[in-house]
Amino acid sequence: MEVGLKLRAIEEARQRVAPHLVKTPVVTNARLDQEFGASFYFKCENLQLGGAFKARGAFNAVFSLTEEEAARGVVTHSSGNHAGALALAARARGIPAWIVMPNDVPTVKAANVEAAGARIVYCEPTLEAREGAARELLAEHGATLVHPYNDYRVMAGQGTVALELLEQAPPPDVILAPVSGGGLLSGIATAARAVSPKTRLIGVEPAGADDAARSFQAGRLVAGGTPRTLADGLRATLGDKTFPLIRQHVDEMVTVSEEGIVAAMRLLWDRLKLVIEPSAAVVFAAVMEGKTAVSGRRVSLVLTGGNVDLARLPWSK
Amino acid sequence: MEVGLKLRAIEEARQRVAPHLVKTPVVTNARLDQEFGASFYFKCENLQLGGAFKARGAFNAVFSLTEEEAARGVVTHSSGNHAGALALAARARGIPAWIVMPNDVPTVKAANVEAAGARIVYCEPTLEAREGAARELLAEHGATLVHPYNDYRVMAGQGTVALELLEQAPPPDVILAPVSGGGLLSGIATAARAVSPKTRLIGVEPAGADDAARSFQAGRLVAGGTPRTLADGLRATLGDKTFPLIRQHVDEMVTVSEEGIVAAMRLLWDRLKLVIEPSAAVVFAAVMEGKTAVSGRRVSLVLTGGNVDLARLPWSK
Repeated sequence: MEVGLKLRAIEEARQRVAPHLVKTPVVTNARLDQEFGASFYFKCENLQLGGAFKARGAFNAVFSLTEEEAARGVVTHSSGNHAGALALAARARGIPAWIVMPNDVPTVKAANVEAAGARIVYCEPTLEAREGAARELLAEHGATLVHPYNDYRVMAGQGTVALELLEQAPPPDVILAPVSGGGLLSGIATAARAVSPKTRLIGVEPAGADDAARSFQAGRLVAGGTPRTLADGLRATLGDKTFPLIRQHVDEMVTVSEEGIVAAMRLLWDRLKLVIEPSAAVVFAAVMEGKTAVSGRRVSLVLTGGNVDLARLPWSK
Repeated sequence: MEVGLKLRAIEEARQRVAPHLVKTPVVTNARLDQEFGASFYFKCENLQLGGAFKARGAFNAVFSLTEEEAARGVVTHSSGNHAGALALAARARGIPAWIVMPNDVPTVKAANVEAAGARIVYCEPTLEAREGAARELLAEHGATLVHPYNDYRVMAGQGTVALELLEQAPPPDVILAPVSGGGLLSGIATAARAVSPKTRLIGVEPAGADDAARSFQAGRLVAGGTPRTLADGLRATLGDKTFPLIRQHVDEMVTVSEEGIVAAMRLLWDRLKLVIEPSAAVVFAAVMEGKTAVSGRRVSLVLTGGNVDLARLPWSK
């Protein structure tokens, strides 16, 4: 496999996934623009297949496999959007998928994965247990691991967000994207740096899960502490494949508060009429908390997903 | 003014409003298609300026005025989406707008109208009081009344939804649109009947506010009873300009239950990741309640708006 990630791999990913996925719209909002004195462009990955950008990486990985590899199936460990995305990709290719999930996963998330036809293997809710369970499946079936983010095929798939965005909206002064394991940010940064070199690239994460900001600052991968954030999609830590690209291409990393995430989520639901999850709201929290200057600028923001429990919204009592 | 409504007026309206409004996206959903065995195309008017299709009619009316008429301003009576839409249109043309609202209107709705720069004139919450207040304003200022729906300029503007939809998606077997006063449905029906004559046109309304179905059945305008529905945008009754066009062009009128509206609203939030208001959900309630056959068909549905109080959702206790 190619080491590193280049624009060409992202362009190839785009060709590969396009027949299967949604070219998500970019929406604008005159009132928000007026209030903040900026021009915002929101890339709606909440409208992607499966409700999150994760389908891009999963489909690119699954459709990159040879016939022989594909026939033996794919494995991942995830309790989040990647699990559902990989299940959808495997079904689209007609191959088996095994998803290792902690035995305390919410039933709604397990049900989504099962609805897409994947098999769930439950394990204890520890990193060791899930990696062990994944290893056993790989050995038993000869299947291919599709890591949620630390995988160049996945990163290339996520980078297709930027290729679309840069065609759909005027050249942005700034792109804001959430960062967790870094699959999305590394892909976007690689694509955007190549296509639109002057655009400022900013990663955003919760202050309660700020390993990426600390690694970026230190110039080396630092250990993540125990994540404390309601943004359940942003609790992972950077990987050894994602971090070097982020370090190379990203201009800045900012953090936002939990209150800021809830306020941004609610404001965007109210103004944009879009259901977005807390992890997606961090980018606008950065705007609202003044973590990045937007006045007079064209600012593109990636709204990463919309998978939330509608019965338990963070602003409900 | 021209009597009746023709395709040409809708095409002219499209030219007139295009520079000011959003060409809203049409979204699809593979999972819903699979579950219902249909191909659904959702026209996202919740993403329209002001969060509802009403901007189309209001902008067409306001930008149809001569300079002399425009300078004297516009008046309407509405406590809903039309009020905010007319305020936005008047601001865009730089003319005064007076909105007559009942004195029990929720403060958030009044605040939206004031944020757009219109002047609110409060009255008692009766039809007589609001019509009286509007008459006084018209006489005092020489302003133009822009009725929420019973106005050919407004109906032509709303019909632009259909012109866009028919370009953005394959020719539909069926179009489902909510009906209240009939401004949207008459405009859509006029446009779609001319452009896509074989498409079946169906109006949907709450069983608790079914004057349109009863008028359609009787072949004449019947009086509306007291509307009993949480779909606050669907409590008006057909007008003498909208009804004849609906009678002429619409194939069928169906009604849906309150439980069906809530279930459809929640399902669409969950699957489409779109914030839609109860009035918009009626079209999918008709599908879920089996009021119209969708299996094997291309079904276009107009999601009319997304203005809801996020603190009080109908499925919250």
